[in-house]
Amino acid sequence: MPGQHCTKVGALVTMRSAFWSINRNCFQTLQELQPLMAQSNLPVGNDKPQEVGGEKTRPLALQKARDNFLKGVSYFSGDMEVFGKWMEKQFFLLQLLDWVLRGAAQVMFVNNPLSGLIIFGGLILQNYWWALNGFVGTLFATISALILQQNRGAIAAGLYGYNGILVGLLMAVFSNAGNWYWWLLLPNIFMSMMCPIVSSALASINSRWDLPVFTLPFNILVCLHMVATGHYNHYFPQVLIQPRSELPNITWAEIDVAKLFMSVPVGVGQVYGCDNPWTGGIFIISLFISSPITCAHAVLGSAVGMVSGLALAAPFGDIYFGLWGYNCVLACIAIGGMFYALTWQVHLLAITCAFFCAYLGSAIANSMSTFGLPACTWPFCLSALTFLLLTTETNRIFKLPLAKVTYPRKTWEQLQRAIEDEAILNEKEQLRLELEKMEEGREECKASEGEYDQMYVEDNAPAVEHNTTEEKEIKHIDSSSDDYV
Amino acid sequence: MPGQHCTKVGALVTMRSAFWSINRNCFQTLQELQPLMAQSNLPVGNDKPQEVGGEKTRPLALQKARDNFLKGVSYFSGDMEVFGKWMEKQFFLLQLLDWVLRGAAQVMFVNNPLSGLIIFGGLILQNYWWALNGFVGTLFATISALILQQNRGAIAAGLYGYNGILVGLLMAVFSNAGNWYWWLLLPNIFMSMMCPIVSSALASINSRWDLPVFTLPFNILVCLHMVATGHYNHYFPQVLIQPRSELPNITWAEIDVAKLFMSVPVGVGQVYGCDNPWTGGIFIISLFISSPITCAHAVLGSAVGMVSGLALAAPFGDIYFGLWGYNCVLACIAIGGMFYALTWQVHLLAITCAFFCAYLGSAIANSMSTFGLPACTWPFCLSALTFLLLTTETNRIFKLPLAKVTYPRKTWEQLQRAIEDEAILNEKEQLRLELEKMEEGREECKASEGEYDQMYVEDNAPAVEHNTTEEKEIKHIDSSSDDYV
Amino acid sequence: MPGQHCTKVGALVTMRSAFWSINRNCFQTLQELQPLMAQSNLPVGNDKPQEVGGEKTRPLALQKARDNFLKGVSYFSGDMEVFGKWMEKQFFLLQLLDWVLRGAAQVMFVNNPLSGLIIFGGLILQNYWWALNGFVGTLFATISALILQQNRGAIAAGLYGYNGILVGLLMAVFSNAGNWYWWLLLPNIFMSMMCPIVSSALASINSRWDLPVFTLPFNILVCLHMVATGHYNHYFPQVLIQPRSELPNITWAEIDVAKLFMSVPVGVGQVYGCDNPWTGGIFIISLFISSPITCAHAVLGSAVGMVSGLALAAPFGDIYFGLWGYNCVLACIAIGGMFYALTWQVHLLAITCAFFCAYLGSAIANSMSTFGLPACTWPFCLSALTFLLLTTETNRIFKLPLAKVTYPRKTWEQLQRAIEDEAILNEKEQLRLELEKMEEGREECKASEGEYDQMYVEDNAPAVEHNTTEEKEIKHIDSSSDDYV
Repeated sequence: MPGQHCTKVGALVTMRSAFWSINRNCFQTLQELQPLMAQSNLPVGNDKPQEVGGEKTRPLALQKARDNFLKGVSYFSGDMEVFGKWMEKQFFLLQLLDWVLRGAAQVMFVNNPLSGLIIFGGLILQNYWWALNGFVGTLFATISALILQQNRGAIAAGLYGYNGILVGLLMAVFSNAGNWYWWLLLPNIFMSMMCPIVSSALASINSRWDLPVFTLPFNILVCLHMVATGHYNHYFPQVLIQPRSELPNITWAEIDVAKLFMSVPVGVGQVYGCDNPWTGGIFIISLFISSPITCAHAVLGSAVGMVSGLALAAPFGDIYFGLWGYNCVLACIAIGGMFYALTWQVHLLAITCAFFCAYLGSAIANSMSTFGLPACTWPFCLSALTFLLLTTETNRIFKLPLAKVTYPRKTWEQLQRAIEDEAILNEKEQLRLELEKMEEGREECKASEGEYDQMYVEDNAPAVEHNTTEEKEIKHIDSSSDDYV
Repeated sequence: MPGQHCTKVGALVTMRSAFWSINRNCFQTLQELQPLMAQSNLPVGNDKPQEVGGEKTRPLALQKARDNFLKGVSYFSGDMEVFGKWMEKQFFLLQLLDWVLRGAAQVMFVNNPLSGLIIFGGLILQNYWWALNGFVGTLFATISALILQQNRGAIAAGLYGYNGILVGLLMAVFSNAGNWYWWLLLPNIFMSMMCPIVSSALASINSRWDLPVFTLPFNILVCLHMVATGHYNHYFPQVLIQPRSELPNITWAEIDVAKLFMSVPVGVGQVYGCDNPWTGGIFIISLFISSPITCAHAVLGSAVGMVSGLALAAPFGDIYFGLWGYNCVLACIAIGGMFYALTWQVHLLAITCAFFCAYLGSAIANSMSTFGLPACTWPFCLSALTFLLLTTETNRIFKLPLAKVTYPRKTWEQLQRAIEDEAILNEKEQLRLELEKMEEGREECKASEGEYDQMYVEDNAPAVEHNTTEEKEIKHIDSSSDDYV
Repeated sequence: MPGQHCTKVGALVTMRSAFWSINRNCFQTLQELQPLMAQSNLPVGNDKPQEVGGEKTRPLALQKARDNFLKGVSYFSGDMEVFGKWMEKQFFLLQLLDWVLRGAAQVMFVNNPLSGLIIFGGLILQNYWWALNGFVGTLFATISALILQQNRGAIAAGLYGYNGILVGLLMAVFSNAGNWYWWLLLPNIFMSMMCPIVSSALASINSRWDLPVFTLPFNILVCLHMVATGHYNHYFPQVLIQPRSELPNITWAEIDVAKLFMSVPVGVGQVYGCDNPWTGGIFIISLFISSPITCAHAVLGSAVGMVSGLALAAPFGDIYFGLWGYNCVLACIAIGGMFYALTWQVHLLAITCAFFCAYLGSAIANSMSTFGLPACTWPFCLSALTFLLLTTETNRIFKLPLAKVTYPRKTWEQLQRAIEDEAILNEKEQLRLELEKMEEGREECKASEGEYDQMYVEDNAPAVEHNTTEEKEIKHIDSSSDDYV
């Protein structure tokens, strides 16, 4: 039956062209990472390369070599799935350590124990006491999640630990009682153990819109602790934060360009409350290990934050200290490839979000200083949630279902697989339609063949199949909104 | 078959009486607008007047004359649908201008380019620089919506422009850098372009309750800009707003009654941040063109705000300046006929909402002054959303589905049509039931005939059909709430 | 058919053992209340005791005596259902009084007019003027709910009155104009009448997560009134509340242990804004009448609040004044048996919630003092909502559907009945499965008999049926979340 073949080839070609157009963006922005990205090509290439005769542009030998190399890399990059599975059979305390390390890295959306280990290294470089508090926070948050019988998979991915590490760290950072004030561990443990409760509660709300909770539990709990005790407290005094009440002294002649550039890694470090540029650099390396795209967006976000600070006449000290960067780092990572499938439109959206986040960061820092509070990562949470709630009629901004969020490279593969699945589905549907048509007149098949041939020649990305996904989505939204009319 | 006829007539009579009771309220409150309202009677009158013999109270000739007059008026009143359709075939820039003008008027829930043009006239009368900023804001908000591929129908109705005009205007109004400070256009353009993103995000949330976003994006973005920069900023300083810290001087002997009355149009003008009473007057005219009911509620709301200010011991200066009126104007319009079908119960609800809004306005103004922020239109948004979330067991407070919100007169017609549709549906259902009954005993039909005859005589408004709508709604809510039990 | 019998007995045994394990907790914590609790055993005991031969541990005679006694007690304990039904046929004003009294008690989640009467007694003991304001508030809130045609059952349960009494009371408590300032009744009546509107609006939102509105309408409306007028207002001045700006003087040597213990009943009294320990004691009695479990959790919560205050270095004066207790009282009642079915895990959760609530209370009090506002019961609302949104994979923390929330003892019975229903359902399901199996091989039934016999011997609580409920719930959640993917 010729109809079947023609649609199958046509669908595959369209899918492939859509994929290549995505890949091309990647090549432009991250030329040196090409080997890592190429893997996403494999599933298709391996499955049915013989069907698409003329598409064998890359020799199979090179692909195999790459395959082997990537297999080696994959053991410690991405989410270290193999290691994770091996861990499942180990001693409980070792498992717990794995979860804690993954939790430490999950702050940056990285589910990788090696990254977590490096991050703890960076924290120790910054301050022993802070690192200890961070570890205690992660540990007790994870234990609390176990006690409350939260989802084991989520615990194992470190999703109950990342708020804990931030709570522990930042409570130590903002404490006015100095280092090694051991009593601080008490509220630290209490607040860390509250993390899974607040996370679970917020997830109940956010899941209605298929949104993650981000670091909202951390923001809520640290602000709660700080404002509950305040600067004037005998047991747990906080550093004094006051609203600005006079014009800051900004003389452009005094600007220190070296410090300005250093503010980019410092901004990445400030995600964990660290102002040491070396610590920031170590964090960047830990990101690179897991996902170079995440790493690139982190640096980009920090730079955007720095520029925004200059544009809004922020005191230079704040910019050098990385206060303008860390929220943008997180926002840029979240939008750029983590929760949206990465296309160049999404890449632009991520940069826009970083700018918006910087603006919002200034607003939140100013308004929360009235209560003696720092901005924490509220600006990131609010801006990223806003951008994730965005709905458009274009299929180039495709929000991933929350359950499928892993890391940028993998989401690509998923998007591709979804396209493929859609293609097969679409194929079957078209086949069915054609069969119907054939029974009517038997002329339409040739026309559709011609149509697909044309597409084959053009090799652009109108992504017919993706479109169908979108349409289904829209229909779905329509049907669900009908419920509330 | 006698059963069919008796139910048909009965249903029509009940529907008609329900309609007349609505109409009567209109006659009482807006006697002079009777010709405009009467149009809503036409569809029924034209369709099946011969079936309801005794109801021909108005001669057809008069109705036809009215019809012609109203056809003329309809070209520039309401939402100028004919003009909108003609526009669709025009040059893109002309279309864009249409959308910008509609956007300017949509602040007042008016989808009418002529009203928008008059409003821009009022703004120019107030301040050239403000008007320019407003125009830039509307323009870039609309362009941003186009780039983000938002719903074309919504863009064409100006629904992505109204937050833009407010953002542009109010950023200029609250800037402390004086007029013609051209750098202000940069944050103005950025914030205007963020409007569709924030609108879309909020719509994703609010649509779950079938609620509009109102001016929330404007509130969020202007507050964000103001608090991010603040009074002590080198580039974008804001006017200094501080909380009250001493008893205001209020001497009733000093009250200026003329200024007090003038505060009503000034209150309408303050919706766009304008304190010129002539500008306010022009805005009132622009409202009247599109919808006299909207206009009446605007004036009523402003008056309610003024009274509330006096009742809560506000400084007279604030009242004269219209600060107590503008939120009530918007709240009163929104509840009074825009999002609820107008009945006299809804009219009372709108007045209650205006009082609540004035109270809330004072509360929000006081609390936001702590952050150096004005109240913007937060009070309107929050009070109107609260009143729209209200659920009652009466069928006299009927919330329109968001997709059907247009303007008060049209919503009447829709309500009526819905009643009619329900009547037909109900009729069919009853017919079916009767057929079933007839097969059982053939006695029930006469009883039901008697019942309907009685209703015919009474001519009051128990709105059997409407009731059914309500019941269906309630059932629907029940079934959806079952999902969450 | 042997299969039917074996599963029936097995299911009943498992259910019974699950029930006894719940009951045992009760015996441990509230030994003296045993007679009241035992009633929950009756439905099962009466229905099919002959089927479970060996379980007749309690002689029927004693049970009958208890039954008679409990019948007497039930006339004025619990929700006084019999009295409520008798009331339905009485004069309207008498009914209204019943609703007002129930409303007064509903602040503590008690639907009991006798408790309400005693509470009004306590209020009169505290302050005549406050009691009057509270009465006016409850009355007008109930009337407003009637006007707005809210659900009659909810009105009759006092669910529209409890926000009214708090609004009335607290507006009087925080007024700086002194007692018997009659003008205060005007905003009191206005705000009370707004209660049902705000309640209804919040319920529209919260019902999506099957959450109650708690005292949120009261919090919103009282804060609104206070910040709208403020300390510097000619007509309605509020007491001056300012943020802390220096270290409080805390000397542990000066602590007054008697006052510290007295702070427990004072904390209960502060739920209604009363600082008189006798008033607090009266409130405790009123709670005991309706539900001893509620009463115990109230006292426990107040004690937890006091301890938290000491732990967070609060000024002793605040602790003595009960400011640390009242939110914990409400949070502990809400979580401990009211909205969750009481197990010992839930009991621990209630205590955790009380600690969290105390922490949150301090945070909210400090941050709201910036606006000159008291904490009201925001901490209770937010902490209880957080803990009610918690989802776990354990079946020992079982959130009751909102429509079935009554009072702790009844919820037990409901849980038990649900278990029983599930058992019957499960039974039928298993029967069906077994029939299928029998047609296949006819060997499985004996194996399952053995299995159930084993369970019978063990008499522990793996709660197979309850598990099934949970699984159904989880499936349900899955299917509903699918809608949003």
